Amino acid sequence: MDLRSIIRNVPDFPKEGVMFRDITPLLQNPEALQVSIEALYEKIKDLDFDYIIGPESRGFIFGVPLAYKMKKGFIPVRKAGKLPYETKQQEYDLEYGTSVIEMHVDAITPGQRVVIIDDLLATGGTSKAMVDLIQEMGGKVIKLVYLIELEALEGREKLQGYDVEAIIKY
Amino acid sequence: MDLRSIIRNVPDFPKEGVMFRDITPLLQNPEALQVSIEALYEKIKDLDFDYIIGPESRGFIFGVPLAYKMKKGFIPVRKAGKLPYETKQQEYDLEYGTSVIEMHVDAITPGQRVVIIDDLLATGGTSKAMVDLIQEMGGKVIKLVYLIELEALEGREKLQGYDVEAIIKY
Repeated sequence: MDLRSIIRNVPDFPKEGVMFRDITPLLQNPEALQVSIEALYEKIKDLDFDYIIGPESRGFIFGVPLAYKMKKGFIPVRKAGKLPYETKQQEYDLEYGTSVIEMHVDAITPGQRVVIIDDLLATGGTSKAMVDLIQEMGGKVIKLVYLIELEALEGREKLQGYDVEAIIKY
Repeated sequence: MDLRSIIRNVPDFPKEGVMFRDITPLLQNPEALQVSIEALYEKIKDLDFDYIIGPESRGFIFGVPLAYKMKKGFIPVRKAGKLPYETKQQEYDLEYGTSVIEMHVDAITPGQRVVIIDDLLATGGTSKAMVDLIQEMGGKVIKLVYLIELEALEGREKLQGYDVEAIIKY
């Protein structure tokens, strides 16, 4: 199955000149959803790890079914102010200004091994912030896997030294 | 397994006087995540439907693994401005002011049958907006299932005439 043919290309979103890769037709297609999750699973099935970590909100889409399939726990990374308990924060740069992600302080015990799952690797800003936050908490990121990678944005450059894979590349 | 014992009670979040039911320890516990998804599955496994629909962002957490398990498609409902393609909107009231949810215009074909999955039934505002939006698009909501229901907030009152179930009630 050619997943790429099911992803919708939406020009000029979220702003002029950007071609948005819309995965909603893929999510809605039962076979494409199965194939996508299986493809991500193939990338991590032989790894020894404790948790899958995914960022709000599209990182939840593939992270939780993989955690379920592999009988692992899932840790959400959220935007500032969404997690109710005590958190650790990580700031990162956006095109204009900065943003903050958070994890609960008790999400990771030093030495635990985690896999990061997200739908999209673009500039890598969120992923780098997650990696930094997890490391600061004593966790070890053993792999980052994405459904889609936008190679022109060079997100991998921010993640040097890490095992980074994507299923579909543009 | 007593899921309730794994949910963390955080007082005064997001504001004073509110007891927040924090599911992050449940997501992180591999067995509790399995049990939660299986419990939701039991509520819908015998139904005839086309799609699972879940609202951003915590509705993605349980909606997608259930779609995966049942080999169905998943349709995300998102906050205004997040979906890239043409959308239909539904406004709904918050405690102060209003909010807007969206679905892609081609998400549902008239006559299709859907199940709504979310982590929490509180006031029912988001759920009612989803039901209205789906109906306007010609879809039929055959059931709404939540992991948690906050009974004191009477969200069910807004969903009269629908089949509403929850795994854990407070």
